[in-house]
Amino acid sequence: MYRTHTCGELRLTDLNNNVTLAGWVQRIRKFGGMIFIDLRDRYGITQLVFNQQTNATLCEQANGLGREFVIQVSGTIAERSNKNPNIPTGEIEIIVSELKILNPSEIPPFTIEDETDGGDDIRMKYRYLDLRRTPVRANLELRHQIAFATRAYLNNLNFLEVETPVLVGSTPEGARDFVVPSRMNPGEFYALPQSPQTLKQLLMVSGFDRYFQIVKCFRDEDLRADRQPEFTQIDCEMSFIEQEDILNTFEGLTKYLFKTVKNISLPDFPRMSYAEAMNRFGSDKPDIRFGMEFVEIKDLTTGKDFGVFDNAEYVAAICAENCASYTRKQLDELTNFVKRPQIGASGLIYVRYEVDGSIKSSVDKFYTPEELKTWLDRANAKPGDLLFVLCGKREKTQKQLCELRLEMGSRLGFRKKDDYQCLWVVDFPLLEFDEELNRYFAKHHPFTSPKPEDISKMDSDPGAVRANAYDLVINGVEIGGGSIRIFDSELQKKMFKLLGFSNEQAQAQFGFLMNAFQYGAPPHGGIAFGLDRLVSIFAGLDSIRDCIAFPKNNSGRDVMLDAPSQLSQEQLDELYLKIKNS
Amino acid sequence: MYRTHTCGELRLTDLNNNVTLAGWVQRIRKFGGMIFIDLRDRYGITQLVFNQQTNATLCEQANGLGREFVIQVSGTIAERSNKNPNIPTGEIEIIVSELKILNPSEIPPFTIEDETDGGDDIRMKYRYLDLRRTPVRANLELRHQIAFATRAYLNNLNFLEVETPVLVGSTPEGARDFVVPSRMNPGEFYALPQSPQTLKQLLMVSGFDRYFQIVKCFRDEDLRADRQPEFTQIDCEMSFIEQEDILNTFEGLTKYLFKTVKNISLPDFPRMSYAEAMNRFGSDKPDIRFGMEFVEIKDLTTGKDFGVFDNAEYVAAICAENCASYTRKQLDELTNFVKRPQIGASGLIYVRYEVDGSIKSSVDKFYTPEELKTWLDRANAKPGDLLFVLCGKREKTQKQLCELRLEMGSRLGFRKKDDYQCLWVVDFPLLEFDEELNRYFAKHHPFTSPKPEDISKMDSDPGAVRANAYDLVINGVEIGGGSIRIFDSELQKKMFKLLGFSNEQAQAQFGFLMNAFQYGAPPHGGIAFGLDRLVSIFAGLDSIRDCIAFPKNNSGRDVMLDAPSQLSQEQLDELYLKIKNS
Repeated sequence: MYRTHTCGELRLTDLNNNVTLAGWVQRIRKFGGMIFIDLRDRYGITQLVFNQQTNATLCEQANGLGREFVIQVSGTIAERSNKNPNIPTGEIEIIVSELKILNPSEIPPFTIEDETDGGDDIRMKYRYLDLRRTPVRANLELRHQIAFATRAYLNNLNFLEVETPVLVGSTPEGARDFVVPSRMNPGEFYALPQSPQTLKQLLMVSGFDRYFQIVKCFRDEDLRADRQPEFTQIDCEMSFIEQEDILNTFEGLTKYLFKTVKNISLPDFPRMSYAEAMNRFGSDKPDIRFGMEFVEIKDLTTGKDFGVFDNAEYVAAICAENCASYTRKQLDELTNFVKRPQIGASGLIYVRYEVDGSIKSSVDKFYTPEELKTWLDRANAKPGDLLFVLCGKREKTQKQLCELRLEMGSRLGFRKKDDYQCLWVVDFPLLEFDEELNRYFAKHHPFTSPKPEDISKMDSDPGAVRANAYDLVINGVEIGGGSIRIFDSELQKKMFKLLGFSNEQAQAQFGFLMNAFQYGAPPHGGIAFGLDRLVSIFAGLDSIRDCIAFPKNNSGRDVMLDAPSQLSQEQLDELYLKIKNS
Repeated sequence: MYRTHTCGELRLTDLNNNVTLAGWVQRIRKFGGMIFIDLRDRYGITQLVFNQQTNATLCEQANGLGREFVIQVSGTIAERSNKNPNIPTGEIEIIVSELKILNPSEIPPFTIEDETDGGDDIRMKYRYLDLRRTPVRANLELRHQIAFATRAYLNNLNFLEVETPVLVGSTPEGARDFVVPSRMNPGEFYALPQSPQTLKQLLMVSGFDRYFQIVKCFRDEDLRADRQPEFTQIDCEMSFIEQEDILNTFEGLTKYLFKTVKNISLPDFPRMSYAEAMNRFGSDKPDIRFGMEFVEIKDLTTGKDFGVFDNAEYVAAICAENCASYTRKQLDELTNFVKRPQIGASGLIYVRYEVDGSIKSSVDKFYTPEELKTWLDRANAKPGDLLFVLCGKREKTQKQLCELRLEMGSRLGFRKKDDYQCLWVVDFPLLEFDEELNRYFAKHHPFTSPKPEDISKMDSDPGAVRANAYDLVINGVEIGGGSIRIFDSELQKKMFKLLGFSNEQAQAQFGFLMNAFQYGAPPHGGIAFGLDRLVSIFAGLDSIRDCIAFPKNNSGRDVMLDAPSQLSQEQLDELYLKIKNS
């Protein structure tokens, strides 16, 4: 037996007991003929004491230990004279009588502490050491808790977890697939699923009624901080339900998770239509932890010989409270912020509403204080506030103003990580028009049902058709999304036609689903939560990478495993493949 | 709202209530101006009644329904005059007042009944209809229950479920990998994991202490009935433990699953060494639901001028109780059985111990009844029993006799599906010698630890070294296996050397693990259960295929999705791949 207890469980009530512990040497301190060692395992830290006077040989042995050595010790529990109130075991220490080195350690390439001196690259190469750090491990413990609680909640509601295959067929619609050559079927490839969408719909056709799966999905996209080639979804589907049932069930799940994992009781989630979210916040995933809503002022700005506004489709403002005292430097920073190529505004106009009631603006050449006051009034600005104005094409400007709003929210401390504001965004448009390709794309996916009252518009005004589609947004992050599905094969055909599929193409790609719909498909719908993002929100992380045990870098590489890598000629031959020079 | 209740929940206590149900038309019976419909959903079947006299229009509408139509009905609950005691809803029926067809259905290509008329191929092509059949769906419900209970048990013991990556590096050791070309790293490939073995060991190095994962694994092997290219493992690893801890923890899991899922209380599992299992049953996964153990009789048979036995390395018998009356035809059948190329015996010798005490044998030319009696005595045969004898090279003959024993066990009804006999097989050999390649292979895998007391034999007699490796066997099926791992980098190097790896090869393939061992690896070990096989044992199935929602056929094809398939030239170009002609 390697241990009687873990390093996190001994207390004053265990005084004088003999115990055996095993773990890693976290810290060594020498002090007046004594050696103190912090012994660490997943469960905590316990202080070990070696006394030169009472046991010189043992003390000598302890002297040879280094950081991250794996040791086993036996000894007696004593009360600490110098208690540490910050850790649960801080009132006791072990007077060690036996010490065994289970495994020595080289000096680690970075310190295994909460705050480490290791940069990103080296921590990824030695991820197994990085994972020893308490905050990183805590993220994965949180991930386990969230997944476990999700299963408990859904199982309780009669959802069945069904595993769908990882080796499926390639579907050109959507993002790029990862593919897997088949040795047994030369020249043919499986694809890794971007989501189990069609398979979960087939399970509904099969009468499974309530399905879920916590499942790896794959997309061969160019990567960013919050994207990984493989990611995990909480994927769900229900039959004989309407949108309201899905929203209630998964609002329930979200509340359950916050209560179980973080002991936070959330109020009912507000709902907002896509159109409203765009108008008020310029985003389909608004961060509603703070206001600073968009105020359209085009009508107030027109006809005063200011061409920039006169020629703009859209002029809108946000009001930053108590920011009238912003310096020139601060205003320049924000101007540069909105002019960055990622945002792309051509400039930033401000109106200062000074505390004394006077009004100053970067456009006071064109507008009188009285005119500017009408803008301030519409934005409910008070003396001391600062108005920012952007203008241009509607959608583009909304996005720019949204970025500025979020930046101001951060600067003003309105985006607290432990303030959780959930929101349902509903009534998404069914289709999105791609100007470049001159065709419609499905906003959600081709299986999403139009709202019944909008079906008549599918021919006359496809862009105005709203879908029974919804997103769950927490603190401005899209955590989940789903829709009520089409279950009528005629409507599905019509949808494919709108998306520019010929009958043959639709049949070739989704024939199995369209055929299945011929044999009694029930009304159904579903939702998928991004587990990685959900965990990162719970953990207060900015990137999903630190809630994944072994993430890949921005080139899709696992630098620890050194994957991907070249295959042997023999492996390539067996797969009937040749590499072309890149 | 599509329904107030499911089709499985209404009882006599709900009498006279108005309800709305939705589901599939299972069966339609017309009888004296009445139409009776069995309405089916996942939860059960409820009888609907339409009465020509009270509502002719509705009855007319019901007349138009067909099998597998999806309908919604409202009506009142009435007591059935003709009760069906076989289903929980059999005491009531719904007097329908409203009927809505939610979706019609074509006539299905096979009947959706417990016993269907559909062959394997058509059921796989229309798997979504096959999954509507109660026994198939029940297998997947069972799978959900087993996975859910497994997680509950392990979570309770502080195991953390950690997701390991699906896109990893290729390791030539072991079975063939499925590979995934990387678009971002031209000419390089990921591999899909055959198991998370090395990653879970890294998690132990990271101090995760107790890890599990229910995880898809992949092997590009030629397929058989009980193999699939993708399969699911309950994968576990623990730190600071010995073999005994693993056996107890996972015997506990197995008992918990049988109790929770099937309400069966299992006694403690017997343990048997690999050597004993081979000697007594000729198998490392013996079916101990019945005896019929091997009896070696080489010493009793030698020197009687029967060259076949004299020249054989091994002569052994099994005793089939009460089979002395077997006919010539039965004996011929069994002789043909052992002579099949898959088994490969050259013949079968029998000794009949007649009820009257006389002895007859196919070798009574060579042996007197007294001599034959010594064989019978050693096998504890009683009058009325039948002895089968096989001979030849030891290992080959043991395998043949094992097959014969299992066949006899089946014929005699000793292998009941609901009789669950669990067994730990322990002390596996560390290495296996491959005559053809003239080298040792790891019996389990290269990370398995030799028994400490056998380490000294690694140089002198590698074949005799036993490993701290163990298998869980239920009813002759290997359900799980694992080992205590090497955690000392010197011992790991020695092991790789025994397996014929150069230092460079070992470093290239497993460098990340050997490096990790330099930084304080704890003693650790683990086990993996095959979930597919575990479910099939619980379900009493012969193949794993029917406990998988969307299995592949023997050519690795998903005939429903028609995967794998060819890629477009554009996709191939993006991946820098060319197909060679096969």
